[in-house]
Amino acid sequence: MFRTHTCGELSLANKSQIVTLAGWVQKIRDKGFMVWIDLRDRYGITQLIFDTERTDAKTLELVKTLGREFVIQIVGEVIEREAKNDTMATGSVEVLVQKLTILNSSKVPPFTIENNTDGGEELRMKYRYLDIRRNPVKNSLIFRHKVAQEVRLYLSGEGFIEIETPYLIKSTPEGARDFVVPSRMNQGQFYALPQSPQTFKQLLMVAGMDKYFQLVKCFRDEDLRADRQPEFTQIDCEMAFIEQEDILNTFEGLTKHLLKAIRNIEVHQFPRMTYNEAMKTYGNDKPDIRFGMKFGELTDLAQGKGFGVFDGQELVVGIAAPGCSEYSRKQTDALVDFVKRSQIGAKALIFVKYGLDGSLKSSVDKFFTEAELLKWAERLGAHKGDLMLIMAGAADTTRGQLSALRMHLAETLGLRNPDVFAPLWVVDFPLLEWDEESNRFHAMHHPFTSPKPEDIELLKTNPKAVRANAYDMVLNGNEIGGGSIRIHDKETQKMMFNYLGFTPEQAENQFGFLMNAFEYGAPPHGGLAFGLDRLVAILGGQESIRDFIAFPKNNSGRDVMIDAPSKIDQIQLDELHLELKK
Amino acid sequence: MFRTHTCGELSLANKSQIVTLAGWVQKIRDKGFMVWIDLRDRYGITQLIFDTERTDAKTLELVKTLGREFVIQIVGEVIEREAKNDTMATGSVEVLVQKLTILNSSKVPPFTIENNTDGGEELRMKYRYLDIRRNPVKNSLIFRHKVAQEVRLYLSGEGFIEIETPYLIKSTPEGARDFVVPSRMNQGQFYALPQSPQTFKQLLMVAGMDKYFQLVKCFRDEDLRADRQPEFTQIDCEMAFIEQEDILNTFEGLTKHLLKAIRNIEVHQFPRMTYNEAMKTYGNDKPDIRFGMKFGELTDLAQGKGFGVFDGQELVVGIAAPGCSEYSRKQTDALVDFVKRSQIGAKALIFVKYGLDGSLKSSVDKFFTEAELLKWAERLGAHKGDLMLIMAGAADTTRGQLSALRMHLAETLGLRNPDVFAPLWVVDFPLLEWDEESNRFHAMHHPFTSPKPEDIELLKTNPKAVRANAYDMVLNGNEIGGGSIRIHDKETQKMMFNYLGFTPEQAENQFGFLMNAFEYGAPPHGGLAFGLDRLVAILGGQESIRDFIAFPKNNSGRDVMIDAPSKIDQIQLDELHLELKK
Repeated sequence: MFRTHTCGELSLANKSQIVTLAGWVQKIRDKGFMVWIDLRDRYGITQLIFDTERTDAKTLELVKTLGREFVIQIVGEVIEREAKNDTMATGSVEVLVQKLTILNSSKVPPFTIENNTDGGEELRMKYRYLDIRRNPVKNSLIFRHKVAQEVRLYLSGEGFIEIETPYLIKSTPEGARDFVVPSRMNQGQFYALPQSPQTFKQLLMVAGMDKYFQLVKCFRDEDLRADRQPEFTQIDCEMAFIEQEDILNTFEGLTKHLLKAIRNIEVHQFPRMTYNEAMKTYGNDKPDIRFGMKFGELTDLAQGKGFGVFDGQELVVGIAAPGCSEYSRKQTDALVDFVKRSQIGAKALIFVKYGLDGSLKSSVDKFFTEAELLKWAERLGAHKGDLMLIMAGAADTTRGQLSALRMHLAETLGLRNPDVFAPLWVVDFPLLEWDEESNRFHAMHHPFTSPKPEDIELLKTNPKAVRANAYDMVLNGNEIGGGSIRIHDKETQKMMFNYLGFTPEQAENQFGFLMNAFEYGAPPHGGLAFGLDRLVAILGGQESIRDFIAFPKNNSGRDVMIDAPSKIDQIQLDELHLELKK
Repeated sequence: MFRTHTCGELSLANKSQIVTLAGWVQKIRDKGFMVWIDLRDRYGITQLIFDTERTDAKTLELVKTLGREFVIQIVGEVIEREAKNDTMATGSVEVLVQKLTILNSSKVPPFTIENNTDGGEELRMKYRYLDIRRNPVKNSLIFRHKVAQEVRLYLSGEGFIEIETPYLIKSTPEGARDFVVPSRMNQGQFYALPQSPQTFKQLLMVAGMDKYFQLVKCFRDEDLRADRQPEFTQIDCEMAFIEQEDILNTFEGLTKHLLKAIRNIEVHQFPRMTYNEAMKTYGNDKPDIRFGMKFGELTDLAQGKGFGVFDGQELVVGIAAPGCSEYSRKQTDALVDFVKRSQIGAKALIFVKYGLDGSLKSSVDKFFTEAELLKWAERLGAHKGDLMLIMAGAADTTRGQLSALRMHLAETLGLRNPDVFAPLWVVDFPLLEWDEESNRFHAMHHPFTSPKPEDIELLKTNPKAVRANAYDMVLNGNEIGGGSIRIHDKETQKMMFNYLGFTPEQAENQFGFLMNAFEYGAPPHGGLAFGLDRLVAILGGQESIRDFIAFPKNNSGRDVMIDAPSKIDQIQLDELHLELKK
């Protein structure tokens, strides 16, 4: 062992002890006759002191050769500091060094290894091993470890068994794009990396394992949006002989446990909301309910008064931004610009200022009386001092636009407090969604999701209206997980594939093993998966997952530190019987 | 919830309660007026009873439609059994069924779902979801979960942080063959799946994470030998500011903890043996020390007496098989056949029977006196009643052959008791081994392993003799893990790549990121990896890992259940810019 103590543990209780420490040189203050060094390791920082009176000349000479991030080992005596530093755990002591050994030198790091660094994103990724030395990243990784441990403890305690499912599986092009792995031993054939262990966990239910979980890497070869990774980690779960209610209860239990164990926060309410209700009230299937600003529909009130922006539209809908009645022209213009951005694409945004004095001012005064505007205020739940914002257009589109505005306003108004946690179940998702591009229905969750028994008849007449036994857990406006009750009989599964446009041959070829398994006593089952990266980030009070992943990839799917992906040898291609297309 | 209780928990304490159970029909005994069903779930078996007196006609009719592995739900009353079954946890009670619901039917399973099945290996793999219903497989998976949980608890308790390293990394053809993953977004480039997180865990040490672990899937595209899998799980660890001794102590601690927590066995001794000693004493770098039969070298005693089989050979070496002096001609012939098999390839095996009466009989009596043979017995540690077995030839080859014979005899003599655990550290492995095929040195452990400082000079004059700071943990004749102290400075690492035949460009291209990292304050570090599959199997008293993996692949790397690998769509190939070679 290179040390007797870490850099985070010495206190006055160790006074006069001779200790050995090892770590990195964080900071050097050289007053000539006296040198202080902040020595850092994973556990903290300890101040070292060298001086001309008490340190021998050779050691003093060696100290002068040190630079930032040098790795050193010292032996010295713990002494009481004259000027104590209450902000440091070890701030009452320093170590008077008797012996100094340089374990390794360091080039000058390309950015400062401090809580706030001068390093840009790209540079930090290239030198991720230096970035991780910084407290915010280091602590995020330790935090992630704690969350993962607590997940395992909780689920094990509930009788779940963690079972590893294979990574080299079969490509099933339904859903997102697979990463594939050419097989050398089976030429011309490929494995795929799992997008999720979905079929395996269902087979484990057929196998009688009853309660399964796994913290598992999943892979999707998608064009990366910000904060998406080609490989990500799921808390994957499945249970047999249960109904939706049992799953919701189990994962409410897990979420409560995590909030309590990790953040010491007690959450009692897990409100439930149907998908339709969420879309109608928040324009979003993952509403942030830490704040209000619920949608109010004004179609009946606002149409037929001669105002062209509203008349003839499918929906007129608005929200009330609390305390914003005195917004300046500049501020409201900025909101108009926000909703007109191409990502949102709204045409217009109407304002009504509900003054603290009860006055109602708007740019549409000539179309609507104050009494009419007061009715709007009622619908939107607006109070004196609020700003009403109203949009109109096709229902789905307009709701989406207003939802974006609602989130933007909440951000501006500081309503998204990262230390407040408001979980929510969104239930009764539609089974199918129409895909314009392929001109067919896609499974909204996945093809193994069970329609609600009472809606099965609707499949023939109004497929879009069929609800699934599918649910998402939403936390602070983020979908942190979702799942469903599965189909567990072959006939229903075949019918489902048929609705999704599979030929019987395609269904058999890709998922025959699962449908066969359903013929040998498949129990009713269902499950859920949480996205661990996102969950950890939100529990940690962050919106970005990047610092909770040790070695993330950039938006082109590259690891810029190791420079992957990269070319491979011709001999490797030959062994795989592959050629690169010219 | 489909049940109020599981099939493993009812006892007389539940007498007269109305319960709901769900599970699989394990067995039906139909006496006409009375029907018993064994209902099975993950937790156990509960006997159900239906009879013409107490069960209504409709339910009785439904019972007659049941078959093995049907999934049913019942409501009934817990009653005391007349004939109790002490071998079952629930053997004192049965449930008089009032209501029966068939949740799913089942085809007749292709093999019996019993502890001993009539299903062959191939069939069991194809219907793995039925195989897992059998207790031996189910219990192995639950056992694995427990081991993994205990590993995590122990290492977390010791301050290790589990950190996920990426699966999509860079191909580095040194070592075994990589599985590669074509990148769609970076055409013509490939990721590789990790053979181990070796470089990443070293980077985490450079990053100051101090104590890292991970239970992680690793991948090797090797031609599969029996009981090898293309994907396997490692307990991967790394520590900074430590010496070899610290690592050995930490993982002795882990191993002790597992044996105690999982098997309730206390092991105090972790003997250490150098690689050279292990090879000399057992002909093997992973000796099974649960039994003796240590090698005795007879070269000086046995040569020059005119016996052609021994004379002129590099080594004459033997073992004493305890209590085998009365082996028949048939038995000794079988041993000769064993060592002459092509996998072992010995030319001859000499026997000396050391009778219980002290007599010494051999086929080489005319070359050696009884006094001489007595000296052999001394060297081999043979006692009266033992059989001495002697081989001669080139030292390394002969030791390997005798080692195979020693293990074979131990197996025959029942000396490999799976409930006895004898761990052992083998230390001081050679740094390099000569590879005939490529005509250069390979790293025996891996290229990041540190030579012993006192042996570095030998690199120039006698590379084969250079010892590494490398160690293996051996348990009952199996290598369950190994590791090393790593190189942590760029110059030594460059020199090492040079000795391994890398050009500077190759070294830079493949491992430049690691050598760069070493320039920014890399601490001394080292680590170890245990093979989880093997460790779990051995702790479970088994030699084969197959049943401790939920969905293993066969010897051609195929998953015969899902039929992977398989062909992929042309569109997938096109997107990856790949062509199959004609």
